[in-house]
Amino acid sequence: MNRSLSLRSKKGNTTSGDAPPRKFGFSSMRASTQPELSKKLYRLIKSENHVINNYTNAGREQISIASQLSDWGLATNDDAISDISDKIGVMLSELGELEISYSQNLEDFRAVMKSIRNVEASVQPSRDKRNKITDEIQRLKYKEPQSPKLVQLEQELVRAEAENLVAEAQLSNVTRQKLKEAYASHFAAVVERSQKQEILAKHSRRILALLDDTPVVPGDTRPAYDLEREARQILADAEDDLRNWTLELEEVPTNASLDAGAMPTISNIGGSAATSPVLNGTGPLSVEEQEAKQEVVA
Amino acid sequence: MNRSLSLRSKKGNTTSGDAPPRKFGFSSMRASTQPELSKKLYRLIKSENHVINNYTNAGREQISIASQLSDWGLATNDDAISDISDKIGVMLSELGELEISYSQNLEDFRAVMKSIRNVEASVQPSRDKRNKITDEIQRLKYKEPQSPKLVQLEQELVRAEAENLVAEAQLSNVTRQKLKEAYASHFAAVVERSQKQEILAKHSRRILALLDDTPVVPGDTRPAYDLEREARQILADAEDDLRNWTLELEEVPTNASLDAGAMPTISNIGGSAATSPVLNGTGPLSVEEQEAKQEVVA
Repeated sequence: MNRSLSLRSKKGNTTSGDAPPRKFGFSSMRASTQPELSKKLYRLIKSENHVINNYTNAGREQISIASQLSDWGLATNDDAISDISDKIGVMLSELGELEISYSQNLEDFRAVMKSIRNVEASVQPSRDKRNKITDEIQRLKYKEPQSPKLVQLEQELVRAEAENLVAEAQLSNVTRQKLKEAYASHFAAVVERSQKQEILAKHSRRILALLDDTPVVPGDTRPAYDLEREARQILADAEDDLRNWTLELEEVPTNASLDAGAMPTISNIGGSAATSPVLNGTGPLSVEEQEAKQEVVA
Repeated sequence: MNRSLSLRSKKGNTTSGDAPPRKFGFSSMRASTQPELSKKLYRLIKSENHVINNYTNAGREQISIASQLSDWGLATNDDAISDISDKIGVMLSELGELEISYSQNLEDFRAVMKSIRNVEASVQPSRDKRNKITDEIQRLKYKEPQSPKLVQLEQELVRAEAENLVAEAQLSNVTRQKLKEAYASHFAAVVERSQKQEILAKHSRRILALLDDTPVVPGDTRPAYDLEREARQILADAEDDLRNWTLELEEVPTNASLDAGAMPTISNIGGSAATSPVLNGTGPLSVEEQEAKQEVVA
């Protein structure tokens, strides 16, 4: 585990320093047309796309290797290697499919992060407008303190500040809600991939145990291989385990209940924390969960 | 889970059909200079390299994203988001490091697979030589049945067959031993990554739970964030769990004990299965394990 408890102390070393270099191109220019406020998330979401592509490719290659292994085993003309390499191939192929599912889950995560970026981008003009009016007032007060335009600008500023106050509340509400939602699903996807791949890997090692690697001397013939049934049974066991698998996670409590304007819904303003939904939750909360939740959101 | 219990029935669909297209280049020509016998593994080992690169890149990008998230959080000027995004960044960075460790373990797997490929490549000339002499004898018997060269060739064939018998035994011994060893370590690496990432993901969700996403109305100020200590404690918990983690796996039994010539060692010929080592084993075997093992290798 990384001994550092914050990334900021070593910021200079890791900020994109470890990432493979990206070629200069049109796509790398697009960030510069983003409003200042959404630039960082714009880049992060872009980087996440590279992560996703790497997992998709790893999964596809793994599925290809699974077939190659099976083909190779068949060509050895060794019944034991042929059967076991084919069964291991089935498992490797499934491991590859899980990488692809994982990358699809990350794609969903990425879509939620985009909703934060979009609000950031839309809040920028409201900040700019308020700042522009403030600057203009300062300028006039200095140059033409008696200008009748000052009164008009002061009124405009009040309106702009009201608008910006709404925008900032929307930004805060959406950011907290979506950040929590996005990463809760990201980490749930990590747990899902982990648990399923662990199941497959353990059964795969059982299949390997069926391969007799006792060495022979020249001219010896090996005893006939007769463990096809056992090998098939292990695949069936793995299939059963995956079919019966369910995602069981401590819930990440949420109090976010936003209306279409990214403002609290009425029930949320007056309501108690215990009645609000949870992220990735399935059933009603137990008393313990409600208490735990109220502590968290207090 | 893949319903198919063999990859061969659907071979036409999956053999490298799902892999991303590779550009034509010098590296793609090299397989054609490999002996026929080692071509399939040569390609498989090549494909594994692509898998490894994808995991390495995914890990590096993840570490970069971790820093980007932390930077973004700092720039929001929201204490809660700042602290939690930084802590989540630490976890994401660690997840990325685990992908890189995983890719290094796959590199070790790949090295073991190469030892099979190398024996395959070295056995090819022995097969070729035997076949060439056999063909020559057939040709002479037909064209010059009285040729004195026939006697010489028959003697050469006996020597070539003896040599090939050794080569084939070496191939069989090395292939079974190394195939088992390679994939036992491959699947152990999958289990290690899975268990460690599951630990990190679950603690990460605990950190997310610290982010209060109760929405505010315009002009409201949020209560001050005072959960730094709790967040730091979760990182410490994750670090403890990773430090105390050990790989616990059912052993994959092995009877392979080869001498430098890839032949059985003397103890192996006379010895009992129960005294032989196990793959990834640490201590002496229990009685149950010995019994289980003897069943497997019987």
